[in-house]
Amino acid sequence: MNTSLADLKIVLIGLGLIGGSIARGLSNPKGGQKLCREIIGVGRNEEMLQQALSDGMITHYSTDVSEACADADLVIIAVPSMTVEKVLQQLKSVVSTNTVITDAASVKGAIIKSVSKVFGEVPENFVPGHPIAGSENSGYSASIVDLYKEKKVILTPLDQTSERALSMVQSLWQALGAEVINMSVTHHDELLAATSHLPHLLAYALVDTLSQQGESEEIFRYAAGGFRDFTRIASSDPQMWHDIFMLNGDATIKVLDEYMADLSRLRTAVQNHDSDELMATFVRAKKSRDKFLAIFPKESK
Amino acid sequence: MNTSLADLKIVLIGLGLIGGSIARGLSNPKGGQKLCREIIGVGRNEEMLQQALSDGMITHYSTDVSEACADADLVIIAVPSMTVEKVLQQLKSVVSTNTVITDAASVKGAIIKSVSKVFGEVPENFVPGHPIAGSENSGYSASIVDLYKEKKVILTPLDQTSERALSMVQSLWQALGAEVINMSVTHHDELLAATSHLPHLLAYALVDTLSQQGESEEIFRYAAGGFRDFTRIASSDPQMWHDIFMLNGDATIKVLDEYMADLSRLRTAVQNHDSDELMATFVRAKKSRDKFLAIFPKESK
Repeated sequence: MNTSLADLKIVLIGLGLIGGSIARGLSNPKGGQKLCREIIGVGRNEEMLQQALSDGMITHYSTDVSEACADADLVIIAVPSMTVEKVLQQLKSVVSTNTVITDAASVKGAIIKSVSKVFGEVPENFVPGHPIAGSENSGYSASIVDLYKEKKVILTPLDQTSERALSMVQSLWQALGAEVINMSVTHHDELLAATSHLPHLLAYALVDTLSQQGESEEIFRYAAGGFRDFTRIASSDPQMWHDIFMLNGDATIKVLDEYMADLSRLRTAVQNHDSDELMATFVRAKKSRDKFLAIFPKESK
Repeated sequence: MNTSLADLKIVLIGLGLIGGSIARGLSNPKGGQKLCREIIGVGRNEEMLQQALSDGMITHYSTDVSEACADADLVIIAVPSMTVEKVLQQLKSVVSTNTVITDAASVKGAIIKSVSKVFGEVPENFVPGHPIAGSENSGYSASIVDLYKEKKVILTPLDQTSERALSMVQSLWQALGAEVINMSVTHHDELLAATSHLPHLLAYALVDTLSQQGESEEIFRYAAGGFRDFTRIASSDPQMWHDIFMLNGDATIKVLDEYMADLSRLRTAVQNHDSDELMATFVRAKKSRDKFLAIFPKESK
């Protein structure tokens, strides 16, 4: 059975930055025509759901998962990582094996565990997913129509994942302009620990350190010297990041320990006025940036 | 004697990002009319000096400090921090007490020491300065006309600094659109250690850690998750940052040690799945960002 996106009834559980941006991308694409048959928004905040409906971003809404998902073709779970399990429990008794389920959580190992716990095993119609896109702003009001355009979406299908389910979720993200990459669950969690979870942890720690200095307002006034970027990174949704570190702690600590060793080495170089070591480190970093710019020429000014 | 900027012969030693942007701001302001009488560029690279001359950014150039500075009204030293002392030695025998000297180095205590060493004391016509402006790009080719517009410039005058010298340097920066703030040398070095030198050190260490991972190219491909900002911060001029850490190591290590203690605390919270501690830290950081946005509303999207 090869189903086109245009025929689908899609349920979006969670209409925050991630879910709201999916709704906007599906409802209001550049071409003008909605990309699927129905988009049902599910959330706890009825005022926000009403807003999304009057914005034309969803075709219906419900505050009840069971009601919304009964005959859904595709259910997208876009809630904070630690809330996914509760949603899965509500889904278990209402969805048929025809309904494809995917998620957008930033951790994948912990989600797979939750799915196994709730369903007894990971069903063939469940496709674990993670869009590498976001913003320091959160909530429906921060959602934008092209959040996923030219962004990467990682799917971590298991051996039992059905071709049909995988293909449907791939079509969804491609329709939103994203590049879809498949990788293993473990590789995802390690890669994201290094490229996203660790940098956020470092930024949170720095904002915390500097906010506790005697004259922290003055410190913010001089943030243009480099600190500003850290305050931006550290202003993402606290609940989301709480959940990520609760669920991907092991992989994060592994790369954090390597980082702390490197930082200690650099501290020693500063303390010893070790000119050669400092210069070698900074030249190496500059070369890495050049490598990065070769991959993403648009980042260059 | 109250001299207007328009009457001055200004010598710029160093035409990199900082000196080149001063030259552009003085030569090619919005109004069209050059802001001073003469702008002499001094550097080692004659091809670059020739380029600046044909761009109309300087009125003359020289590769010889003594020749250029003989009857200068204002000499601006815009070379890497550890090269300032060598320039001061060349200046010592040629400038009169009428010539005001200022610098643009990112550290101030070490510069004051160099001035004392070369001149026997800090002369009344020397004004230590530091524009809080920059870019991850460096060199004359990266210089821009409005680099200092709406930026802060910190001056750290000493008791003996003459009113005339201070006022001339203030006029220079104000003419380039900057806000000038005076503070003590020690306060400057501590403030910059926290807001600029520490963030750069953390970014350099992270780029170093992640570049050494097995599949570092893949890590760069997924940098959109947060790592990207760190690669940008860590791509600033290696020589400049080498000099900063060589010269402001003590103040940097002081705040680095506080940071490492905070990071260790956060590591423990992650390891122990300490939900309350993680949430409290992330909410605190979010509040700090909100405070920052209240100071700089333009940063908000």
